[in-house]
Formats: sequence, C-alpha cells, structure tokens
Amino acid sequence: MLIGRMLVHQEFDDVALILESLPLDKRLERWAKIPTASRLNILVVMRGDPRETLLDAMSLDELDALFQEMDAEDLVELADSLPNRLVDRALQAMDSKQRQYYEGAQKYADELAGHWVDHNQLILPQNAKVRDGLRLLRRELPDHVDAVFLINRAGHFSRAVHIGDIIGAPDHVPLTDLSEPDPHEFLVIAASDSAVDAAFRVQKSGYSALPVVDAQGLLLGRMDVRTASEIVNEYYEGQIMAGAGMDEDEDLFSPVVTSAKNRAFWLGINLLTAFAASWFIGLFTITLQEIVALAVLMPIVASMGGIAGSQTLTLIIRGLALGQVTKDNRRALLKKELSVGGLNGIIWAITVGIIVSIWFANPMIGVVIALAILVNICAGALSGVVIPIVLSKLKLDPALSGSVVLTTVTDIVGFVVFLGLGSLIL
Amino acid sequence: MLIGRMLVHQEFDDVALILESLPLDKRLERWAKIPTASRLNILVVMRGDPRETLLDAMSLDELDALFQEMDAEDLVELADSLPNRLVDRALQAMDSKQRQYYEGAQKYADELAGHWVDHNQLILPQNAKVRDGLRLLRRELPDHVDAVFLINRAGHFSRAVHIGDIIGAPDHVPLTDLSEPDPHEFLVIAASDSAVDAAFRVQKSGYSALPVVDAQGLLLGRMDVRTASEIVNEYYEGQIMAGAGMDEDEDLFSPVVTSAKNRAFWLGINLLTAFAASWFIGLFTITLQEIVALAVLMPIVASMGGIAGSQTLTLIIRGLALGQVTKDNRRALLKKELSVGGLNGIIWAITVGIIVSIWFANPMIGVVIALAILVNICAGALSGVVIPIVLSKLKLDPALSGSVVLTTVTDIVGFVVFLGLGSLIL
Repeated sequence: MLIGRMLVHQEFDDVALILESLPLDKRLERWAKIPTASRLNILVVMRGDPRETLLDAMSLDELDALFQEMDAEDLVELADSLPNRLVDRALQAMDSKQRQYYEGAQKYADELAGHWVDHNQLILPQNAKVRDGLRLLRRELPDHVDAVFLINRAGHFSRAVHIGDIIGAPDHVPLTDLSEPDPHEFLVIAASDSAVDAAFRVQKSGYSALPVVDAQGLLLGRMDVRTASEIVNEYYEGQIMAGAGMDEDEDLFSPVVTSAKNRAFWLGINLLTAFAASWFIGLFTITLQEIVALAVLMPIVASMGGIAGSQTLTLIIRGLALGQVTKDNRRALLKKELSVGGLNGIIWAITVGIIVSIWFANPMIGVVIALAILVNICAGALSGVVIPIVLSKLKLDPALSGSVVLTTVTDIVGFVVFLGLGSLIL
Repeated sequence: MLIGRMLVHQEFDDVALILESLPLDKRLERWAKIPTASRLNILVVMRGDPRETLLDAMSLDELDALFQEMDAEDLVELADSLPNRLVDRALQAMDSKQRQYYEGAQKYADELAGHWVDHNQLILPQNAKVRDGLRLLRRELPDHVDAVFLINRAGHFSRAVHIGDIIGAPDHVPLTDLSEPDPHEFLVIAASDSAVDAAFRVQKSGYSALPVVDAQGLLLGRMDVRTASEIVNEYYEGQIMAGAGMDEDEDLFSPVVTSAKNRAFWLGINLLTAFAASWFIGLFTITLQEIVALAVLMPIVASMGGIAGSQTLTLIIRGLALGQVTKDNRRALLKKELSVGGLNGIIWAITVGIIVSIWFANPMIGVVIALAILVNICAGALSGVVIPIVLSKLKLDPALSGSVVLTTVTDIVGFVVFLGLGSLIL
C-alpha cells in the first residue's frame, strides 16, 4: 500500500533531521539504536557532512547490510561520503542492471541532470495500445508518475502519454494518438543540462516528472518533482551558506577542528582584504594624526558604501541565477542602479553631513564625509552590478565571492576618498 | 490534451521572466503585444513588484477582460498587487463558488497554508466503490493528482486512496478497503499550519498533493507539489534578499525613487549602527592621536569578528529554519561554536600579531591586536548563536535583522577592546 510507504518516507526525513541536530556522541548513540532496515533511507536524505560522521562510525558488517538493499540512485547519493573501496564493495553487492545505472550516472558530473536520473518511469514501445498502458498501470504505479513514456526500437524517447488520457480511452486506441506528435523541448531534459535548471523546469512544468535523454535521444530515465525539489532546495541552501564562505553540507556539529579548518580559509581571504584596506589607511597617517575625527568617522563611510553595494549585489546575483540579467539589459540595469545609488547617496550624504557637522562643531568635516559617502554609495552600486557579472563570466560563483570583492572595493574607496578629501580640504 | 496545456505553462513562466528583465518602458511595450488570453497566466507567475507595474498600466477594460477568466486561486495570488476596489470588481465577475473559495482563503493570513489552498482535488464520498473512482478518473485528471480524497457526509476529510490502487482493483471493492484506516497526521495539512512548513512537507511526502483541512477537519482543498515549490522557492529567495534588507518581490527595474525608498530604510538602520560604533571609537580620541597605528589597524579587528560571527550566524539561522536547532542542543551548539571561535581566534590572532609586529616594528602593537582579535572572534561566535535564537523568540526574522545586530556587536566589541587594550598597554 503506497500510503504506508509515504508515511515512512516522511519519518525518515524527521529522523535524519534529529540526527543532524545531535552532537556527535549522542548522534552515534542514537544511530546505534536505529534498525538496519531503516538506515539506508535515513542516510540518503541527510546532509553530506553529518552523514559522513555516521558512515565513518559503521563497521564493515553494518555497511555490508546497508549495501544489500542499495540501488543505483542510493549509491549515487552516498558515493561522495564513502571512500572508493567502499563504493566498489557496494557495487559488487548490486545486480548488473543497478551497476549499469550507477555507471551511467557517473558519466555525468554532479552538477548535470544526467547524474541524478531515476529509473522509476513507466515505459512502453511507441506502437503500444491503451490496453497495454492499462495493464502497466494496473501492475505498478511508482511515486510521482503521471505519464507513460513511449520509446522507439532503439530506446529513444518518443512521446509522453498522460495516464489520465489512458484511463479514459478505449482499449484498442494506439497510445500515440493520445499524445502530441512532437514533444516540446521544454518537456525533455538533456542529461547534459544543468541539474539546477532542469530541476526548476520540472517544478514549473506541471508534470510530476520529465524524461531525461542523452545526446543521441536515448531515454536514460527521468527527474521527478521530489528529486527536483531536493536539487533546488540544496541549490538555495548553497547560495545562503556561500554568503559566509561555507557549503550546504556543513554539519551543525562537525568536530571543532574540521569546522575551524573549513572556516579558516574564508577568514584568511577576508584578512587579506582587511590588510589591503589598512594599507590604504596607512597612506594617510599624517592626516589622521592631525585630524583624529577622521579616524572616528571612517567606518561610517566604508559601511554605507558596503551596505548599498550589497543591496545591488544581491539583486543582481538573483537576476543572474534566474536569467533575468542578460547582455541586453546590463546597461539599463547599471544606469538604474547608479541612479538609485545617486539618489540614496545624496539623501544620506546630507543627513550624515549635518549630523557630523554638529557633532564635531566643524562644517567642513560634514562636507568631507558627505562627499565621501556620496562617492562610496555610487561606487557600491557600480560594483554591485559589475562584480557579479564579471565573476560569472570567469565561471566563479558570485554568491560565494561577490560580497568579499565588493566590500574590499567599498572599504578601500571609502577610506581613500574620505581620508584623501580630508587631507585636501581640512 | 494535457501536454498541450503543460507546454503553455512553461511558456508563461518564460515570458514572465522576460518581462521582469525588461526596463519599465520596454516592459510595457512588450506587454501591450501579449494577447488578452495569455495575460492572466503570465501575471500569476510574476514577482509582486514587476507585476504591479503591469497591472497599474492596464485600462479598466483590459482588467475586466482579465477578471472574466479569473478563478479564486488567481485572485488570491493577484490580490496584493491590486487596489481594493479592483479586487471587489474581480469578485463581482466570479461565480458564487469561486467567490466562496476566495473568501475561504482570506480567512487565513498569507503565511498560513489555508491561504494557498487549491481546489483541483478529486473527491468522493467515503462509501464510494472502485467503479466510482474509475468513473471520476476517466472524466478528469488535473495536474499533480495521485490520489482521490474520501470525505464523510459532513465534508470532513477521511482518507486518501492512491489512483494506482484504484486502477488495479475490481469494480465492486469499496475504496476504503484500498487505503490505510487512519491517515497519518504528516499527510494532512491543517489550514492554520505555516505555509512554508506545509510546503516542505508536501515536497518530502512522496505524494503529488496533500489534503488541507480546517480546525474541524473539513476538507478545504489541497496543496500540490507545484504550489509547494512556489512557496518554498519564494521562501528561500526571501531569505537571500532579506540578508540585504530587501524582499523577494523586489523588481529588477522598479522606478528609481521606489527602489531608493525601499532600500533607504536599511541604509538608515545601518547608519545608526555605524554611528554607534563611531561613538565608541570617539571615546579613545586621545589614544588614537598618540598611536595612529591603532586607527590604521582597527578595521581588521572589527572585520575578523564580523566574518567569524556571520559564519556561525548563517549556520544557526539555517538550523533554526530547518528545526535542527532546538532547546535541547543550544547549549552544546554554543559550546561547539565557541570552541571553533577560540581555535580560529588563536590561529588568526597569532598570524595577525606577527604580521603587525613586523609591519609597525613594534611587538606590543602585535600583542594588542592579537588579543583583540581573539576576543572579537569569540564575541562573534557567541553572538552568532545567541542573536538569531533571541530574535526568533521575539518573532523577528533572523535572516533579516541578524547580520545588522551581529556586526553592530562585533564592530563595537572590536573597536572597544582593541583601542581599550591599546590605551592600557601601549
């Protein structure tokens, strides 16, 4: 009964989440109590790092028990968390069909749709009739199946027939009569398509799964809405974690040393940029000595530029990911963002200028900081548009490195313009 | 034919994206050329702000044409972009059933599942037999339907029967024999559940849609995987945009003044925190005058604490959203993050200390900055755990305000500790 199985699905997710939320020792204690039969289903829905902590702690006997029930898709999911020799061992425990599926998936890198293919599709030859379709539907109906895929003799995908149309039609009607003659390209995923793009396409298609084909048109399998939502959610989590230089597999309770190491790189990168900014400040040592107010106020200039820039940056990164930002609208976007920056720049320049003039009882310091803020907010807007576009062109992830580069620019511009104007005017 | 309809679905999404990526004048030009029949379908998939630009530009006649084909779910989606008098006008154009659906949705705030109910479910009385089920399936099969919902006489949800089980069974079997006696609570959404939680549940359920019931158990409708993925994706986009004080409806090409206004609030909040930091720096004017190196180096201390803190913050915010962070593991988490902070603090304190000692040929400045960095990285780790948990308790979105509060803390702690130690030791 399908409902029974679903239930268990959701429970596996909940147990996985509980395991992820436990410190390592308690996690292993809890894991030891989980029956072998449930372990595989829990592992496949866990995030990479916490999953690895469990796999590492399992004995070879326990792993072998796991491998007994494993199919190709499970192994595709777990392979990154297993050393190669264990992947080989798992492959040996599989039948040749599953092994073949696994090898098929490995032909595509994990950012491509072909890597994530599942094989629970319903397939019939393209000359099949409604009665064949009904026979198939009566025998089995996997999760998220709303169409039967028709293939030609060579195994190439030909069309999809919706099961609703099959159920209502007379027995002798050829299935091809129930489908559109040409499947639209939207509705077929190429194995070499980006997995994330394909997953978004599945979610929007209105179908519960889309066929995945190779470069020759051979039907490899399908991507269903469940896999699609896993890929899309992982993508978004990755974007959010990237903003702090981490990845979506990060374990809430990874060992302190591992965790410190993972994060040290990011701190190091940021330290370099902070030193760069300090070096520029160092150029104005004499000015700072004479007018200490500049030292007190300089973080304001840097942070206003940084914030304005990060707003533009966030909008542009999203636009790039969605495909909203293109060659055709870049110029218009830059103009708009610079206008927004200019307008906000003027408003906040005046505000800060007035406050500072009063605070330090010196209108000229007000003028200097006002000008510097205007320039730096505009620099932030400019960088917010240009940096992510350039990073994308260089095939670097703007969600990961965009904000470091941007704050480096706004820090340096902010300090140099403010201290430079200060040394000229004051 | 369903495939035909799907195709068009995807095309609407593509056109919506193109419209979003056009500057306002070109967007309206393009919109004018889109046939009335397609407009509604495009509007419902657009983001809030760009959609509003199109609705604002439409004449009353054009809007009336739109309202003719509108059902309750369309209006629920569009209502926020329409002035009240136009919502009333749209309601008048609807039949009484759709109007009732719309009013039903309005009983629930838009962050609740009940607001997003759709009504394309298949329903049968609980005493129905397989033959009734088959008759229903032959007549219609909406998108993402994999089960028939059974209700009792009062309209209360009773069970779901998978259509795969119906297709294979003999005509006279009661449908209740094909389902589990008690639907598990996972598989039924309460209208008062959080829409995001419910949507995640739908995605993980293995079902293509789950029933939504009110507090009395009355079947209101369903949430299908398509709606679920829209809600989840919008949630993630919201999280990403919130990091820069914007929301997911932000238009790439909103008018400059609107856009500047939307963002000014965030700049203002950040200005307050920057002034607070400056005020603290101002306490050390005399020290700064004597030792100008402190002014040159102080941004390094602040930024290292900020980065370390934002790493912890990002991890905890995700953990809170996923339910990984609970009352039971908060203490263990704090301990772990403080250990990571301590370890990274020591490593970077020593590194920076050595570099600075050499740069300024003064080992004592190296000692001061090393101590300050250690303290500030630990302060960042502490704040990264505590701030989002406290904000959540106060029902504030940590994704929106977490990083402002955090950098305020790390800026102030960084400046005060560094300059304070400097004035004591140097």
